[in-house]
Amino acid sequence: MPTATQPNCSIARTLQLVSDRWTFLILREAHLGTTRFADFRDYLGIAPNILTNHLNSMVDSGLLEKREYQSPGERSRSSYHLTPAGEDLKLVLAALQQWGDVHAPRPDGPTVLRRNTQSKEPVNVAFITKTGTAVPDEDVIFDPVPGSPADRTTWR
Amino acid sequence: MPTATQPNCSIARTLQLVSDRWTFLILREAHLGTTRFADFRDYLGIAPNILTNHLNSMVDSGLLEKREYQSPGERSRSSYHLTPAGEDLKLVLAALQQWGDVHAPRPDGPTVLRRNTQSKEPVNVAFITKTGTAVPDEDVIFDPVPGSPADRTTWR
Repeated sequence: MPTATQPNCSIARTLQLVSDRWTFLILREAHLGTTRFADFRDYLGIAPNILTNHLNSMVDSGLLEKREYQSPGERSRSSYHLTPAGEDLKLVLAALQQWGDVHAPRPDGPTVLRRNTQSKEPVNVAFITKTGTAVPDEDVIFDPVPGSPADRTTWR
Repeated sequence: MPTATQPNCSIARTLQLVSDRWTFLILREAHLGTTRFADFRDYLGIAPNILTNHLNSMVDSGLLEKREYQSPGERSRSSYHLTPAGEDLKLVLAALQQWGDVHAPRPDGPTVLRRNTQSKEPVNVAFITKTGTAVPDEDVIFDPVPGSPADRTTWR
């Protein structure tokens, strides 16, 4: 379980654990099915020492789990697998992807689609009610809890 | 309009524009209704020169629009307002917030809720089909487009 309990804002706490570009890109690879060190390195073009540091810190913060595997005749190696908390970042990655597809589109079209594994249909990220009905973005507000540190009417 | 067309991955392009922790936190403030330089500075506790740099770069990348306003008897000042592209990052912020609420919860409970302005009901972020029905996270995959740079079967 990730352990950030400070600061007060949930967005800020999440950003303490997924704080930089490499972390997001490693998560993207993990969500595409990559588990082996050499594959992360090759697909991302990341320097091995930087990759090691990031993987270790993502294991420490509970996003990845480290396992050992051994191919016949080779030495034991490490692989990295999403924890349930890491799996749950799928929505964050999908929201970043969807925004990029709309507001900074690739001229040749997207390289990765989000699909329903059951129906093969494309899926989007959206706000929904408790009963699972979509709510338009413009009908959603961030509403500070009265008396909490986010309540600006009592701020200072 | 934001202008990143490289790299190929939409997540990576988005991260080129919302690349660091301060950018996300400034976006959070803007989504909570903050527009004035002094309010961003006070609410975030950010050094003025760092705030200036971030606001300028967010204007350049099309997330914020700079306007001038003048209070009676005072000099003209700048305010910063979300563009449509900046508004659309609401889902990204909400997904980060939702993850933090679940996986790195604040002991005293969340400080900001996501609410439907019409019904006042809390709302969540989720995957939906084209017709607006929720899809469980575990039924969604990131599916590389065949022949695109994300297609690992043809990689190298």
